Amino acid sequence: MYSSDYSYRVRYADTDKMGYMYYGNYAVLYEIGRIELLRGLGLTYREMEDDYRIMLPVASVEARYILPAKYDEELIIRTKIEVKPTRVIAFGCEILNERAELIHKATVKLVFVSMDDQKSIPCPDFLMDKLSGYFESREQ
Amino acid sequence: MYSSDYSYRVRYADTDKMGYMYYGNYAVLYEIGRIELLRGLGLTYREMEDDYRIMLPVASVEARYILPAKYDEELIIRTKIEVKPTRVIAFGCEILNERAELIHKATVKLVFVSMDDQKSIPCPDFLMDKLSGYFESREQ
Amino acid sequence: MYSSDYSYRVRYADTDKMGYMYYGNYAVLYEIGRIELLRGLGLTYREMEDDYRIMLPVASVEARYILPAKYDEELIIRTKIEVKPTRVIAFGCEILNERAELIHKATVKLVFVSMDDQKSIPCPDFLMDKLSGYFESREQ
Amino acid sequence: MYSSDYSYRVRYADTDKMGYMYYGNYAVLYEIGRIELLRGLGLTYREMEDDYRIMLPVASVEARYILPAKYDEELIIRTKIEVKPTRVIAFGCEILNERAELIHKATVKLVFVSMDDQKSIPCPDFLMDKLSGYFESREQ
Repeated sequence: MYSSDYSYRVRYADTDKMGYMYYGNYAVLYEIGRIELLRGLGLTYREMEDDYRIMLPVASVEARYILPAKYDEELIIRTKIEVKPTRVIAFGCEILNERAELIHKATVKLVFVSMDDQKSIPCPDFLMDKLSGYFESREQ
Repeated sequence: MYSSDYSYRVRYADTDKMGYMYYGNYAVLYEIGRIELLRGLGLTYREMEDDYRIMLPVASVEARYILPAKYDEELIIRTKIEVKPTRVIAFGCEILNERAELIHKATVKLVFVSMDDQKSIPCPDFLMDKLSGYFESREQ
Repeated sequence: MYSSDYSYRVRYADTDKMGYMYYGNYAVLYEIGRIELLRGLGLTYREMEDDYRIMLPVASVEARYILPAKYDEELIIRTKIEVKPTRVIAFGCEILNERAELIHKATVKLVFVSMDDQKSIPCPDFLMDKLSGYFESREQ
Repeated sequence: MYSSDYSYRVRYADTDKMGYMYYGNYAVLYEIGRIELLRGLGLTYREMEDDYRIMLPVASVEARYILPAKYDEELIIRTKIEVKPTRVIAFGCEILNERAELIHKATVKLVFVSMDDQKSIPCPDFLMDKLSGYFESREQ
């Protein structure tokens, strides 16, 4: 398991008429979480696209809204890779508010796609190598 | 079951660097779909908030991304209520592209909340009455 | 002068904590207005990019906020080309609410850019031809 | 004159099909800039609304797009109050890219409005006191 925290301030732009963060804007938080997790591993998604010609379109999202996110709160975006990636990489995302309450939970699955032929590929070695230390083989 | 179709043109604002609709913007399409479904029943969400003091925060989203939505395509947002609402109302959402291909599927669950005490309430009668004809009782 | 009207329903996604449309979301309305104005002339911006390899990045925006746009209102986006385009095309945008009050005014200037060499170019003939009837020559 | 810098990472959500930040998303950067400028002065906009019942709707925006903002770049949002506020407060906003090039310039004017009667009011003392040291009287 690999985990990464990143803080995010709720902006007026994020809020809606109900006074809280609009439910659709959490997807941006998941994005920030997984990009910053990768950066923490020494990788940028920009390089994946530009240098390795690999993109990561989203395949599915499952999200549970527990408590509202309030204007100007500084949230914690906690992102985890809990399962060794295959052709799919799953990011678990937990959002915590300033009182450390869990306000939101999501799982986002993305697929590795070669930008040259638009075909699905396995998790590339340069990422697997960075992650392998975090997923010990249980057989031993 | 009650179903409603609404068309949506993909805007430049919706697209991202990959050239397709950003994965987070589908939530706006679900919103448009369920609001227009309600309008088709003779209800507006604005009235629910203003006149009945009931709001509908989102409790969960499950989404599956099948094919990309391209710039300037005129999509169909197909929204369904397949299960009689209780304290929760579930909207099924299917997005079709111009070639009638299913590109996206989602289920969004919302809860009825009284704006006066922020407590969960059952589906209000004015909505249940509109829907009841579409959900036949199986007991008979 | 060439003018075009298009209707737009204010969504929950557009609103902010103040209860009105977020000031940053008007830019999407300008985009919808100018794209639909072009469509009314028989042109799509998609074709401009895909077939003619011309893009139209925004050079400047001047906007005046007069009255708020309320949730669920059906606005009119009125878009005008008041000056014959050169290397720059200026779209005037007026937003009217359901009571036909002018709530917002903006001018958006865009430049014609060749996608192949990223250089500025004059307004292409296929657009100028469509517009020429609307701009009478004053010399006569 | 009072000035404040804040960094902002361009997200996939911010980009559009052209590969750069969508022109409408700069408004969020202006918002971040002015809110963080106020925080640097020891004020939060949240308190202004909640404790002082004053809101700051936007009256006008003038923006000039100079160079594109690229995905994953860490921008600097430089925000300035150059003129002592009256009933109106003007924020100058300059966006710089990673090479310290000026890519965008804007002026955003907002009005002080009492939330209780929706009327325009002069700049409140608690803000004027914080700013007064930065605007020396020229008469002396």
